[in-house]
Amino acid sequence: PHPRGRPARPLRPAASPSSPGRPPRRPVAAMFRRALKRTAKFGVLGGGIVGGVKVAHMSINDDLDDISYAFKRRMYGLSKKAGEKKKVVVLGSGWGALSFVRKLDPSLYQVTVVSPRPFFFYTPLLVGSTTGVVSPGAIIEPIRDNVPECDFLRVACRDVDLEKRRVFCDGEIELDYDHLLVAVGAQPSTFGIPGVQEYGRFLKEVEHGRAIRKEMLDLIERADVAYAAGKMDQVKKLLNIVVVGGGPTGVEFCGEVSDFIHQDLTIRYPKIAEHFKVTLVEALPGLLTMFHKSVGQYVQDHLANQRVDIKLNAMVKQVDKEQVHLKMKSGEVSNMDYGILVWVAGVGMRPFTKAMCDKIGKENGQTDRRGLLVDECLRVKGTKAGEVFAIGDCAVSGKPPTAQVAYQQGKYLGRLFRMGKQHEITDPGAEAFKYNHQGSMAYIGQGEAAAELDPNAMIKLGRSSITDHMWWRSLYGEADQLRVMGFAGFAIWRSVYFSKLFS
Amino acid sequence: PHPRGRPARPLRPAASPSSPGRPPRRPVAAMFRRALKRTAKFGVLGGGIVGGVKVAHMSINDDLDDISYAFKRRMYGLSKKAGEKKKVVVLGSGWGALSFVRKLDPSLYQVTVVSPRPFFFYTPLLVGSTTGVVSPGAIIEPIRDNVPECDFLRVACRDVDLEKRRVFCDGEIELDYDHLLVAVGAQPSTFGIPGVQEYGRFLKEVEHGRAIRKEMLDLIERADVAYAAGKMDQVKKLLNIVVVGGGPTGVEFCGEVSDFIHQDLTIRYPKIAEHFKVTLVEALPGLLTMFHKSVGQYVQDHLANQRVDIKLNAMVKQVDKEQVHLKMKSGEVSNMDYGILVWVAGVGMRPFTKAMCDKIGKENGQTDRRGLLVDECLRVKGTKAGEVFAIGDCAVSGKPPTAQVAYQQGKYLGRLFRMGKQHEITDPGAEAFKYNHQGSMAYIGQGEAAAELDPNAMIKLGRSSITDHMWWRSLYGEADQLRVMGFAGFAIWRSVYFSKLFS
Repeated sequence: PHPRGRPARPLRPAASPSSPGRPPRRPVAAMFRRALKRTAKFGVLGGGIVGGVKVAHMSINDDLDDISYAFKRRMYGLSKKAGEKKKVVVLGSGWGALSFVRKLDPSLYQVTVVSPRPFFFYTPLLVGSTTGVVSPGAIIEPIRDNVPECDFLRVACRDVDLEKRRVFCDGEIELDYDHLLVAVGAQPSTFGIPGVQEYGRFLKEVEHGRAIRKEMLDLIERADVAYAAGKMDQVKKLLNIVVVGGGPTGVEFCGEVSDFIHQDLTIRYPKIAEHFKVTLVEALPGLLTMFHKSVGQYVQDHLANQRVDIKLNAMVKQVDKEQVHLKMKSGEVSNMDYGILVWVAGVGMRPFTKAMCDKIGKENGQTDRRGLLVDECLRVKGTKAGEVFAIGDCAVSGKPPTAQVAYQQGKYLGRLFRMGKQHEITDPGAEAFKYNHQGSMAYIGQGEAAAELDPNAMIKLGRSSITDHMWWRSLYGEADQLRVMGFAGFAIWRSVYFSKLFS
Repeated sequence: PHPRGRPARPLRPAASPSSPGRPPRRPVAAMFRRALKRTAKFGVLGGGIVGGVKVAHMSINDDLDDISYAFKRRMYGLSKKAGEKKKVVVLGSGWGALSFVRKLDPSLYQVTVVSPRPFFFYTPLLVGSTTGVVSPGAIIEPIRDNVPECDFLRVACRDVDLEKRRVFCDGEIELDYDHLLVAVGAQPSTFGIPGVQEYGRFLKEVEHGRAIRKEMLDLIERADVAYAAGKMDQVKKLLNIVVVGGGPTGVEFCGEVSDFIHQDLTIRYPKIAEHFKVTLVEALPGLLTMFHKSVGQYVQDHLANQRVDIKLNAMVKQVDKEQVHLKMKSGEVSNMDYGILVWVAGVGMRPFTKAMCDKIGKENGQTDRRGLLVDECLRVKGTKAGEVFAIGDCAVSGKPPTAQVAYQQGKYLGRLFRMGKQHEITDPGAEAFKYNHQGSMAYIGQGEAAAELDPNAMIKLGRSSITDHMWWRSLYGEADQLRVMGFAGFAIWRSVYFSKLFS
């Protein structure tokens, strides 16, 4: 085919210092402009040099390390043969384990993830799954999809031989390691109160959320039948939801349930909706005690407005099939009927964590009943430096047991491993983990959330017809597509930053 | 405001019989045209009269009765006061019960639906839920949403007093009725074979699909661990799926599982995928015996190609924790290891159906072990005419126990009730139910389905890059938006008709 003819490009008219119609340039302004240009040039150059140095010496607490690492890999051609790779065994599949594994370089380490739960799940939305706001399947991500370059075994780890560097798991699985990361999390604790294990419902895993949802729907149907049979006593008993624990999970659960009552139950079960009753029991004198006091007070008022009965200073003494037995701080004793008892009062050590604590022994520094004591580089105290690490809820590091902490610890440790400075892992003077607290937030129903972005600062986010009660969830679900920023202002603006690493 | 001025409408130019540029009309052609016009006019008029008469006298087996009924309601102003309404109690929440209730007019009847299952579910997609092709939540529709004008009680019905016209349900619920519809369906039957109840998995309800899926995933994870521990015997044992029953459910399950193996397992669990084994056990000498023989043969070859081991003429004698004990028709006896045993060999009466059969008694005509015998108007034999009806899998009417039959029976009965001819229900000579068989179809894996649209005619629908294996499901899921009709031809074209009422 013939080449298409192109019209010749017209030449630009020669620059004229003072075109007609333009005011002539003033010499002072021109000098200023020239100076500005030069400064800008040097500024960019200087910034480039400083930035380059910064990238080359990226801190292991810095979140931009991927740039630095890509640079290093290119420079030094980091890679090892299969036989030369160090073996890393990771116990757990939660926030800590996954953020660690994602930072590791599969060309340097042979990684095996071991966990009885074959998926990661997005803990902040667990409470929503109890009322059907979010489908359990939507908050799950299989480990095999998430980190396909790692081996995964769906077993629980039972024991460890710290001398031989070997872990023993169910199914007669034995794994040798060079480095072991313990990130098994915590488990719900009954604090030894009789009846809780048998009759209480925990809310820690995806199955728990599903079970609570199923049982609540069952209660409602049974209450509906009891209503039809004219047994009002039974209706009231069945529709008694008792929540024990005034922390974020308990408060969020109350919020979700009251949403569920007002939004769903009144439509589908209008006859019995009014008999629904939610009681929140807390042993301490306030709610959300890890937040500032004003937050707890605000949440308390808000939940009370939604007809949640809040019992503070109330200790659960015993649970039987029909009733919860309470003892108030004042000494008063009372019983409460319940249809379902949701136990979110606290967590304790998993059996493996406990076994490991005992194995290392109090004489070697494992003296804490809450978990494995670690040093400032997250190395388990009493073990050979650089061999065994613990992060997240199973570790006692002086940080709160939240997803945010576990996530940052995992990333920090992953960087420590992959920065190529192998000695740093064992070096007693390695750069310590720095926690960057980005705020806390809890959904409390009716389109409101309690958010604490800075100690002593509480922002109340009100309901509005545009944002509705979905805005808060949208932070988690679609943080990248958040479109309400201009409207809901500062709180959401900041929220975007920690939308993915919130406890 | 001022009225806007309109330009005067120009007059049409007077018609000229022979405009310049047009050929002059020929008299013969003009006559023919005129005759045609007249015929068309009379044809439309005649059709209108015939159609009007037809609509006014719509048959109760006719699917266009909504037009007729809307007309009647308008003409006669059908409606009754709350106290005058006849009480209709419907037992069940499946195809039959729902298609009946939807046809009823809530202004004429006070309807109470009673079922232990508070939702209708789309049975043809149940098998797909076992491998995660379809989410169980997606095939469920709550009864309360579906027929909001009816009362619903989530209880099982236990007994009936035919004299007092009263049913007795769990939760001390007693309901009086004027008309009772029994549409409780059937339940899986073990045929008394020892071990099936304890170790077998049924596939009849939504929970069954969920349980099978969960157990299969568990088996795979356990096999993966066994593989890592080097126990190949255990890997092979765990990955043995034994399906008992070569009917549509068994065949579809084999198809779905082999899809699952080829499409998912080979990617996520490449090491163990090849050890997966599916065995289909059938006591009869062929598969899908309700279809034409050629269909069964085709399906058999197709499944064998997908490495499904088909054992025909094989009776299950016993099931224990580890093995299935088979006896071939030839007398040969063999044992088979299994990881999961899916029992889809057949169905039997539910306890209520059995109790009702016994109550009416053999002396009054209830002599069938499969369910309640009904007459041609679906009235239960041995009861007062027009009081008790039975449809679907719990009724023995000479029709196959399929969703298609139940659906049509429900609609027929609904019309019988709402056509306003109250006497017809009790009249021994009421118009009988006519079954309109619209074909049978079963998905058999790898993008193929066996469809029988007419006895002796089997259409094989092959795989193609456009339709892929989803086309079959699209018939169910999005029948109204079907876009593959032009391509896959006659079979799909016809399929659209019965896409919503297929067994």
